[in-house]
Amino acid sequence: MSVMEMSHRGKEFLSIIQKAESDLRTLLNISDEYAVLFLQGGATTQFAAIPLNICSPDDAVDYIVTGSWGDKAFKEAAKYSKPNVIWSGKSEKYTKIPNFDSLVQNPDAKYLHICANETIHGVEFKDYPTPLNEKTILVADMSSNFCSKPVDVSKFGIIYAGAQKNVGPSGVTIVIIRKDLIGNAQESTPVMLDYKIHAENNSLYNTPPCYGIYMCGLVFEDLLDQGGLVEVEKKNQKKAQILYDAIDSSNGFYRCPVDKSVRSLMNVPFTLAKPELEAEFVKTAAGEKMVQLKGHRSVGGMRASIYNAMPLAGVEKLVAFMKEFQAKHG
Amino acid sequence: MSVMEMSHRGKEFLSIIQKAESDLRTLLNISDEYAVLFLQGGATTQFAAIPLNICSPDDAVDYIVTGSWGDKAFKEAAKYSKPNVIWSGKSEKYTKIPNFDSLVQNPDAKYLHICANETIHGVEFKDYPTPLNEKTILVADMSSNFCSKPVDVSKFGIIYAGAQKNVGPSGVTIVIIRKDLIGNAQESTPVMLDYKIHAENNSLYNTPPCYGIYMCGLVFEDLLDQGGLVEVEKKNQKKAQILYDAIDSSNGFYRCPVDKSVRSLMNVPFTLAKPELEAEFVKTAAGEKMVQLKGHRSVGGMRASIYNAMPLAGVEKLVAFMKEFQAKHG
Repeated sequence: MSVMEMSHRGKEFLSIIQKAESDLRTLLNISDEYAVLFLQGGATTQFAAIPLNICSPDDAVDYIVTGSWGDKAFKEAAKYSKPNVIWSGKSEKYTKIPNFDSLVQNPDAKYLHICANETIHGVEFKDYPTPLNEKTILVADMSSNFCSKPVDVSKFGIIYAGAQKNVGPSGVTIVIIRKDLIGNAQESTPVMLDYKIHAENNSLYNTPPCYGIYMCGLVFEDLLDQGGLVEVEKKNQKKAQILYDAIDSSNGFYRCPVDKSVRSLMNVPFTLAKPELEAEFVKTAAGEKMVQLKGHRSVGGMRASIYNAMPLAGVEKLVAFMKEFQAKHG
Repeated sequence: MSVMEMSHRGKEFLSIIQKAESDLRTLLNISDEYAVLFLQGGATTQFAAIPLNICSPDDAVDYIVTGSWGDKAFKEAAKYSKPNVIWSGKSEKYTKIPNFDSLVQNPDAKYLHICANETIHGVEFKDYPTPLNEKTILVADMSSNFCSKPVDVSKFGIIYAGAQKNVGPSGVTIVIIRKDLIGNAQESTPVMLDYKIHAENNSLYNTPPCYGIYMCGLVFEDLLDQGGLVEVEKKNQKKAQILYDAIDSSNGFYRCPVDKSVRSLMNVPFTLAKPELEAEFVKTAAGEKMVQLKGHRSVGGMRASIYNAMPLAGVEKLVAFMKEFQAKHG
């Protein structure tokens, strides 16, 4: 019987989801103080679920907005709380992370929200801000750098991530939440957005995306086999380094707009000094089987997404291609 | 590249989701007046989305409750509307469908909700009630009999279905909605529950469950190859008939509690006159590779789910086993 045919209440699937959770707990060293939930609907569903579960409608919450995803999260939160953007990188085209000491946090905020890695802009938090008060929790959307490096989960109240970048197929969303935060959802919370329902039912309140969870479990096993997230991070650092080095040593032929100290290990955006060559770059690369290098429609340019599954050889091939392309067109 | 690796915005995946939609439109003869959405979160998410999109909080809505799923839908609707149960089969242990002429509908109801097939209780609507007013739409949860037979979509305002019974893996939810009903969601509707967002973005507002949608598309192709839903229904009728015949001709050794006229073609619940034999029945059947025959934990007994994918030979094998089991224990 395929995993696709199994009952989600049968012992076969139970052992799959329990093993997946257990391996993820090992990978990220998640303590028993936290629940691990396998949900649906992507990070976008969590943009609503978080304020609905953590706030009353009049509660203040703080958002640091370092890109498009953080901005979307902030806008959705306004339906269920009183969110405030305490820092935005928009005027600098989302190329920076703020200095944490300069942040003016609301002492009454229920949480401080960040997007740990902005997929479109390639801006990644290398360290995390500390909320002003103990009562304020740190919440992070880690969709695009989840399991790409070790993270000290105990610093966060909630970590959430769509699976589809690093740990599985689209259609699975993982939420790691401190258990004492569960159980205070607003009355109008849809049952499927209520963390209490999912925690009490071990993510089996209704039929979960079984096959996707199974695939995530296989990836967690593989990441453990690789030596865990310390080793995974080393590989990701090496991949990113050779790519950023190629950009920075191109005498301006290629440019990455992001502050060097906060460049993403996952998403590397770059432009050409001659923008008229960009279409040619994307097309020629595709001819050599390097696809999806076009930047997000909202920012243009190019973007190389070098998630966990991209091997070093793939990045090396891209770098060699970039040098050839520059030699020809530089 | 596997479908799991594709960008949901690439032309390869676009052609997959467009073909899936087109084939579903052919199968169910869905007119251009309706939008077809591929969503996440199961029917349970729709229990909230429907009143949120169709009602103001003070609007009345009518529910016919013929089993557990209809009851859950009703309870969720109370968060976003004023739902009223106009008929419930609970006192008769959900074994009946009401006589439509006897229903007292609310003339101001925004919609009339039914669960077309109750998975746990095996009760299926063979025809559909007509709302009292033109302004009241008929809404149906078809999760467990979707694409098992032809349906006149034009009778409904909304049809919704989790894919996992008949058309694909878990993690995909299909919503068919008359386009004029879209665009009036309550302000507090999570963006992921707003039909307008999904319709405007052709189900690609955020990353959809790509692989699941691909699988649904393959199933739709197969159902068309089988000759469409008229032929599929004939097969389902034959499968159900030999199983119900075996139960009814067992001189009471097996019993199906459901009214004969509304017995489900998909889920066949039955009990043994000697309940102490039920565990033995399930165990022995499993020994012959017929699994998942135990009834839902809320009702007990046995349940044979004979969805589209169950071949006639599978039902014949079960029937032969039932006769043997009766000969031994009767």
